[in-house]
Formats: sequence, structure tokens, C-alpha cells
Amino acid sequence: SSNIRLAVIPGDGIGIEVVTEGLKVLDAAGVKVETTQYDLGAKRYHATGETLPDPVLAELRGYDAILLGAVGDPSVPPGVLERDLLLKLRFQLDHYVNLRPVKLFPGVETPLGKVLPGDIDMVVVREGTEGPYAGAGGVLRKGTPQEIATQDSVNTAHGVERVVRYAFAKAASRERKQLTLVHKTNVLTFSGDLWQRTVNRVAEEFPQVATDYCHVDAASMFFVSQPQRFDVIVTDNLFGDIITDIGAAIAGGIGLAASGNINPDRTAPSMFEPVHGSAPDIAGQHKADPSATILSVAMLLDHLGFAEAAARVEQAVADDLVERQGAWVARKTREIGDDIAARVAG
Amino acid sequence: SSNIRLAVIPGDGIGIEVVTEGLKVLDAAGVKVETTQYDLGAKRYHATGETLPDPVLAELRGYDAILLGAVGDPSVPPGVLERDLLLKLRFQLDHYVNLRPVKLFPGVETPLGKVLPGDIDMVVVREGTEGPYAGAGGVLRKGTPQEIATQDSVNTAHGVERVVRYAFAKAASRERKQLTLVHKTNVLTFSGDLWQRTVNRVAEEFPQVATDYCHVDAASMFFVSQPQRFDVIVTDNLFGDIITDIGAAIAGGIGLAASGNINPDRTAPSMFEPVHGSAPDIAGQHKADPSATILSVAMLLDHLGFAEAAARVEQAVADDLVERQGAWVARKTREIGDDIAARVAG
Ligand SMILES: CC(C)[C@H](C(=O)O)[C@@H](O)C(=O)O
Ligand SMILES: CC(C)[C@H](C(=O)O)[C@@H](O)C(=O)O
Repeated sequence: SSNIRLAVIPGDGIGIEVVTEGLKVLDAAGVKVETTQYDLGAKRYHATGETLPDPVLAELRGYDAILLGAVGDPSVPPGVLERDLLLKLRFQLDHYVNLRPVKLFPGVETPLGKVLPGDIDMVVVREGTEGPYAGAGGVLRKGTPQEIATQDSVNTAHGVERVVRYAFAKAASRERKQLTLVHKTNVLTFSGDLWQRTVNRVAEEFPQVATDYCHVDAASMFFVSQPQRFDVIVTDNLFGDIITDIGAAIAGGIGLAASGNINPDRTAPSMFEPVHGSAPDIAGQHKADPSATILSVAMLLDHLGFAEAAARVEQAVADDLVERQGAWVARKTREIGDDIAARVAG
Repeated sequence: SSNIRLAVIPGDGIGIEVVTEGLKVLDAAGVKVETTQYDLGAKRYHATGETLPDPVLAELRGYDAILLGAVGDPSVPPGVLERDLLLKLRFQLDHYVNLRPVKLFPGVETPLGKVLPGDIDMVVVREGTEGPYAGAGGVLRKGTPQEIATQDSVNTAHGVERVVRYAFAKAASRERKQLTLVHKTNVLTFSGDLWQRTVNRVAEEFPQVATDYCHVDAASMFFVSQPQRFDVIVTDNLFGDIITDIGAAIAGGIGLAASGNINPDRTAPSMFEPVHGSAPDIAGQHKADPSATILSVAMLLDHLGFAEAAARVEQAVADDLVERQGAWVARKTREIGDDIAARVAG
């Protein structure tokens, strides 16, 4: 078959370092890839004022997938690159599933004292294109004592149903077959009701999946006290943002958390990225762990149909983590990438 | 001085059990209290359809403070008692500060493996009367594929400034004098901007307080990986709901988490309640830990000016927790209350 056409957006800070290692491992996996780099991020913003110009967005649509490192830099006004680049990509490319596995690999240290690897093995299906991230809202009488600022969560049957259906299918494909809706239906009645009704309705199509419900506050607590409770979680854009960071914390830290911004209908390329940010404080110091990006590459391979290569990459990371356990020599970003790539190449 | 006039709302489930112990300890503290019980909750709802009738609300305004156990029962449609009783009290009595200490007491087991008591000692100042809890929003074309449900966070300069000012004063009164705003300003730009500008402005009045900012997703992660980071946190109603449950989880569980719904202007009585719910699954089994309610009673005493009695109650709980450590005999709710009351009485 023909080459994968991959757009690469290294971005800012450690994004550049970890993407290099991700590509190294992709190469080692033996899948034929043709990559094109895009210089989006702080540098381009400063040089041209551009974040994601329309022609670039149009070009990106032509790829099979996108690999993104991280965007954001203290020199850019807060939120600009996040919204006008990262979130714009997710929204414009209709990445309605933000898929975030939360899995404790053997050999990995967790801050939770009494948890074993098998205890944490879930997948969060976070909605990616609406909800509180819609950018809706406004401000009146700004800067006066009478100021009012609203921030509106916009939820559509279309948007909720498609991500819920994806989550059910995901749950059905797993051993436990359990799907938990995480929301705050007792307070956020308008949006919560739409989510709950949608889950109830789609559940009828998936009799093999057991569904339950958990308020976001309780779920956040259970991530710490009883992560075993969860198999697949479906939730909105903001709750998903929060709980997946708790998930990263309990599963060994942000250096291991992978994600895929998926367009399941394949009307545009999906985008894979580590959950972590650009970490300007450690950028350029070769300290970043590229494992999250490499695991995101595994998700990318899986999405493009290379299941065997995906499994090989994930296994290589898992083996590396076991070996890394208790190691007293801190490896550099590049060395971790080399080690994992060598395992993948066999 | 004259007696404290206290309204007591035991509510549902374990609320009834824990409030009994709270009152027992209050009594042992030697402060003169005159209590009146209000039968609000599931039973009254079933009997009369009422949640919080206007005349009852008017009566409640006349008390010095309110002690609440917990409300909610599976027999009542989800959210009804939460919104029409609990949140109605918070909103109508203008409890704009929802004060939630997160403190790991010595002797208490935390799910975090490497954390010591001194590492977790913060106070979350959660806004209590607006934000995503405003109940604003709506639904269009309900039940159709074209349905849209919005849920609007409403933030006012008035509402944000008063809680921010309270949080600064709280931070100034503590040793570390550090205040962290937790929000999601890079995405929730309208509400986030109001919060950030307000913190910046009020900060000028508190030069002795060091302020910083943390996104809610990162903060949720840091609660697990580095709780030492935080001293006083100020945040909105929804983020406060979520992070204080993580706080409860890391500080030994929901059985120890106390809270005060404070009206700092004293235009209406403040209300003290454990963070936990009515826990119908263990109700009536004498298994509930009344410590959260007893710590809430300590907050109540402190609020009413009985600082010495408040300190004595908190110390009694702390001593009980040290002694409880490793105890192999599970005490009943009543026994824990008895033990703590005995310590308080001296
Ligand atoms: C950078 C930010 C806009 C983003 C989000 O909130 O989605 C990040 O936190 C994430 O989780 O990928
Ligand atoms: C019961 C519910 C409405 C309430 C809230 O969301 O505030 C509870 O979770 C809490 O934290 O006190």
C-alpha cells in the first residue's frame, strides 16, 4: 500500500523534542511514512502574527493524520495559541472524540500508595468539539462594578450522540464492557439532561454494555480512591479535560499520557498528541519524557489500520518502562527515544 | 452572652446520624445553644411536595447559624432536593463563600503514598452563589436530532470580587500567605478574564499575599502529585466542587471533609455541613463517620466568635484520629461521637 502522509506540528518548547522521538519510533516501526513539517506555534506567531492560516488548514486536511507536539509559550499572550491553533484544529477538523487512555503500566510509579497496574486501565472518551469549549458567552459593562461575564456550554444532540455512540462501541470492544457517563446532571440540568437522555437511548443499541453514571466531583474523587471503578468513561469537553489530568497523575504522570483527537467519520485527518503542554521551564534541556508522544504514535498507527505496528510500539514502551523502573541513571529525551526505537525495530 | 440560636436540618440518610453526633459535641463544648430542628428533605417532600417553603426560609433567616447533615434520597427525582433545598439555601442566604479546608491530620491514611500530614494543608474558597450553578441556560427542539442545550455560567463583578477579597483576607491570615486562582482562563475566556482581572486588582490591596494562577486541569493533577503547592485557593462554584472532592480524597476521605457556607456580611445565617452526601447505601447502619460534621461544627463555632471552643473541637477530632490510627475495632457513628465529645468536655 502507499505511504502514510503525515503532517507534523512540533509546536513549541518540548513539543519539538518529543516529536523528534515519536517520528524516530514511527520510522522504526517499518510503516512507510512521508512526513511534512509545519512550523505553527510561537515562532510563526511572532514572525507573521499567524496562528493557523486558512491555506495551511486547507492543506492539513489532505493528510492521513497529524502528529502534534505541544503549543504555547510565555512570550505569546495566554490562550492565543491554545485557542487559535490547537482548539481550532480540533474544532475545524471535527475531532469530536478526544480519546485518552488512562493505564498504569507495570514498573511505573504512581502517587497512589495501594494501587497495582491492573487497577488502573480505563479509557476516557472526551467530547472534543462543543460544550464549554464552544467559545460562547460575552461580557457586559466590562471593567465596571456592574460587569457580567457569561460563559456558555453549547451541547447539541448531534454532537453528544456521536461521541456517546463512539464510547459505547469502545466499551463493547473491551473486556469489561462498562460505560460510565460523567457529568453534573443534578446541577447542570439543561446540558446534563441531554447527555443522560442520549446515553439512555443509545444504550438500547448496546445491550452488552453495562452503563452507569457518576457526578464529576465523585468521579474525580474515585480516580484517587478507587480507580478500579472505571472502564470506559464518556464526558463533556471540560470535565474530560479535568479528569484526564487526574488520570495522568495517577497513572504515572503527564510524561506518559497519550491522546488522539479523532474524527471517526474520517472526513478530516485525526490528530495525535501527548496530553502534556510545551513545558517552557524544561524546554531544550533534554529532560522531557517522549513516551507520551510515542504512545500517541501507537494510537495513530492503530487509527490508520496498522494494528500490529501499533501493538509493537505500545509494547516497546511498556517494556522500556519495566526496565526503567528503579534505574538510577536519568536518560535524556533522545536516549529514551533511541531505546524504544531499538525495541520496536526488534 | 445569650444562647446561640441554631437551626438544624438533619436531612436524609446518614445526615441524620452525623448531625446527632455534631450536636453532641457542640453540647460538650459548653457553648450555650438553643436548637430547632427542621424536617426538610425526602420525607417532607414525599409528604407534602415541599422542599423549602417560603415561610420556612423566612424563619431560617432568624437564626445565628444552620447545621445541615445531608440531603438526597433515591426515592426523590435526582437533583430536586439538591437544587430546591440545598442550593436554594446557599443562594437565598447569600452564602457566597463555600469554605472548604483540605488538611491531612496526623494518623489519617491517605491514598497518596508519599505524602505527610504537613504536605496537605490548604483552604479552598469556593464561590457559592453564581457561576455554572446559576441555573441559566435552556433547551431548544428537545428530543429531536436538532436539540440544543445550553448551560450558562453567570459571573458578576459583584459576585467575583467579594469572594476574591475574602480569599485574600484568608490568605493574609495564614502563615504562607499564598493565594492561587484556579480557573481555565485559556479556554473560558469571558468568565476567566473577569476572575483574573479581579484577582489582579484586589491583589494590590494585599501586597503581603503572593498570588499565582493554575488551570483547573493542572490543579487537579497537582492535588495528587504535589499538594504542597497550595495554601489558599479561590475558584468558581463548579471548579470548587470538583477540586474539593479531590481534596477530600487525598486528605483521608469524604468522612473527614468539613465545609462552611458562609455569608461574610452576616446578612443571613451561615450554614455548616459535611462535604459528603446522604449515602443511602449505608444509612441506618451506624457506619458513617461523624468527624466531617464535627469539624463543620468547629467551623460554625469559629464563625460565631467562639474561637477557643472551635479550636478545642478541632483538636479533639485530631486527637481522636491519632488514636484511631491502626485501630482494628471499627467504632459506630455514635461511639466516635461519644469519644470526641468526651475529649471536648475535657
Ligand atoms: C491547552 C488546552 C487548551 C488543552 C485543553 O484544555 O483541551 C489541554 O489542557 C488539553 O487537555 O489538551
Ligand atoms: C449536592 C450538590 C448539589 C453539591 C454541590 O455540587 O455543590 C455537593 O456536591 C457539594 O459539593 O456540596
